[in-house]
Amino acid sequence: MNVEAYMIELGQRAREASRLMARAETGIKNRALLYMAEAIEAGRDTLASANQQDLESARANGLDAAMLDRLELTPARIDTMVEGLRQVATLADPIGGITDMNYRPSGIQVGKMRVPLGVIGIIYESRPNVTVEAASLCLKSGNAAILRGGSESIHSNQAIAACIAAGLKRAGLPQTAVQVVETTDRAAVGQLITMPEYVDVIVPRGGKGLIERVSRDARVPVIKHLDGICHVFIDSEADISKAINIALNAKTHRYGTCNTMETLLVDSSVAAKVLPELAGAYEQAGVELRGCERTRALLPQILAATQEDWSTEYLAPILSIRVLDGMDEAISHINQYGSHHTDAIVTENYTKSRRFLREVDSSSVMVNASTRFADGFEYGLGAEIGISTDKIHARGPVGLEGLTSQKYVVLGDGHIRQ
Amino acid sequence: MNVEAYMIELGQRAREASRLMARAETGIKNRALLYMAEAIEAGRDTLASANQQDLESARANGLDAAMLDRLELTPARIDTMVEGLRQVATLADPIGGITDMNYRPSGIQVGKMRVPLGVIGIIYESRPNVTVEAASLCLKSGNAAILRGGSESIHSNQAIAACIAAGLKRAGLPQTAVQVVETTDRAAVGQLITMPEYVDVIVPRGGKGLIERVSRDARVPVIKHLDGICHVFIDSEADISKAINIALNAKTHRYGTCNTMETLLVDSSVAAKVLPELAGAYEQAGVELRGCERTRALLPQILAATQEDWSTEYLAPILSIRVLDGMDEAISHINQYGSHHTDAIVTENYTKSRRFLREVDSSSVMVNASTRFADGFEYGLGAEIGISTDKIHARGPVGLEGLTSQKYVVLGDGHIRQ
Repeated sequence: MNVEAYMIELGQRAREASRLMARAETGIKNRALLYMAEAIEAGRDTLASANQQDLESARANGLDAAMLDRLELTPARIDTMVEGLRQVATLADPIGGITDMNYRPSGIQVGKMRVPLGVIGIIYESRPNVTVEAASLCLKSGNAAILRGGSESIHSNQAIAACIAAGLKRAGLPQTAVQVVETTDRAAVGQLITMPEYVDVIVPRGGKGLIERVSRDARVPVIKHLDGICHVFIDSEADISKAINIALNAKTHRYGTCNTMETLLVDSSVAAKVLPELAGAYEQAGVELRGCERTRALLPQILAATQEDWSTEYLAPILSIRVLDGMDEAISHINQYGSHHTDAIVTENYTKSRRFLREVDSSSVMVNASTRFADGFEYGLGAEIGISTDKIHARGPVGLEGLTSQKYVVLGDGHIRQ
Repeated sequence: MNVEAYMIELGQRAREASRLMARAETGIKNRALLYMAEAIEAGRDTLASANQQDLESARANGLDAAMLDRLELTPARIDTMVEGLRQVATLADPIGGITDMNYRPSGIQVGKMRVPLGVIGIIYESRPNVTVEAASLCLKSGNAAILRGGSESIHSNQAIAACIAAGLKRAGLPQTAVQVVETTDRAAVGQLITMPEYVDVIVPRGGKGLIERVSRDARVPVIKHLDGICHVFIDSEADISKAINIALNAKTHRYGTCNTMETLLVDSSVAAKVLPELAGAYEQAGVELRGCERTRALLPQILAATQEDWSTEYLAPILSIRVLDGMDEAISHINQYGSHHTDAIVTENYTKSRRFLREVDSSSVMVNASTRFADGFEYGLGAEIGISTDKIHARGPVGLEGLTSQKYVVLGDGHIRQ
């Protein structure tokens, strides 16, 4: 198989399908989503046995327990895929929406219409349910998709692809609107990210290695998420009980997510009031603490934080703590060591809350709320294809709108320019 | 001089300045713009003599008349720069604007705040007035700018840079918020577009060669404009007098602009009614016509269009004309040969107008209006840094908003995630 030629063919077909998808009616797109859900319901056994094949090879190849877990399509996960498709069908269709339509002094009327991006390439790792999530969001937003999953989930992905194709066909949409790459050859990724004539944007979902590689080599715009080094700053005027609740929730609600707090910053004037109680609660939860010198003066039992800790995304029950003097030092720390993902202040002070919101350069900035809220569903986007730490195009949780663009529409009555 | 080290230093200073600019008050930014205008007023003589130096070297180097014209800072052009600065000062400040602030079922309030992109690199050719335009738009949108003008205008740009720096200083803003690259070494461009740690977006303004080179080599997102191959389609149900007015205006109002029509598409059922009259008017205006076979059956005196004509941006008094059957053929032609810039239909038919608006994949789509309206000022953006033919981030005329991004702001009262 000539991988380059194969990918170009996928690209050409996707480009063609994208023209039809751009004009597809909302009702037809929704029907396709519901038909896909039905096809998955009906194909449970086929899906399970394809997944079994992947799991067996994975075990034979010595994949670790965490990988095997991500790979597995349990009945509950199949339920979630079906539910997800039905939920995306209920979301409002962003495409064709016209905003800001105003008359201009020349007499023309100018507004903006929301349009699909065109063809979206999604590159992801082991979890086969991403195939359904990504396909459904691209379809609803009027785009064509080329999906490239991990080689370890190839059989599961092909089985899911068949259900997606059945749904598209039954709704009268082109089956090439969602194409799952059939080869596990790595050259397919290299080709996918370097054909701007056929692919408008790449969304890599997976580990940092994958995302860095894709960003470095892509000749197509990339919507990406790198680190989530999130902070909570407990201000001198914080309500202590809110501060303790938020600091605990932001760290312990889930350890492996990108919006989990990795560094706690505490104003020196309240450190003695909050840190001992918090340290006890973290200890009970099994969180390892690493502190700066001033933190360790209050909590001598914990480890010393090194310079490296301030810029580490643990994704684990580990927390670094720094005591500092005032909000300006906290903002400097966040802008220097953070990853511009999600940062929160706990304060009752009006002026400081306004300044923190304005001056912290992160995709989500919060007052008196847990960083764990940084999520497309919590924000009301209805769905999420990822969280962008870029500034261009899409920032923060990316829902359907992040997969669209806008064009200008101009209405006249024979108007010419003077 | 070590160009790489020099550019990195500019980048670091710009990054630092961008933090201060992001929080600069609207009033202070406006004052800086007005002070710059005063400095240019007061520095007319210095500007003129620096420009004289550039003009002399340009003549000695044998630059052509068009280049010399673009390079010259006439008193009228200096007036325009001064006026431009005052006008940007009157525009609304986009930064800090909060939209879509809503309560969520969890009790948190979520909205979006408009923020600067950070550091913007602008690469442009001979026209020194771009230095002022670009600086004023970056400043007003809270960004820091690194400006790299053409080597032929280096003295003019330095003189303008001094006025900009004086205005920034007098307003109490960092002078490093706008830096004009002082070396004419071409390696400076290569460095500028490959340091994502210091530069957030590149805007190349100039010929196609420059833009293609920058796009190919950049490791930073690029907001760019390639071709403007714009179409007017005269539908079977067009009002003939509107059609003739628009077709003439779209071609003859100005020849060298990107929103000028390059190909006229005419439905076969009205071709005999409009083409002879139009051809006479074009002839009077000195426009060379090149037609398809069916066009030449009606206008035997004109040249035959070749396949290449359909995808050529003439930027000159030349027009290609094609007769075809119905709107579907017109849309196919536009999506195949156009550059997704600006395309218009002339029709009185309601259903066709709606379909054309939805199905033509261009940054501006128009009904019964001249393509020449595709312009930031005509659209009410108040200013324009360029017209983007990309889909990602900014599409169509790019004003202040195109130089910004949005971050999420979340307000709570001690809320934690359940």
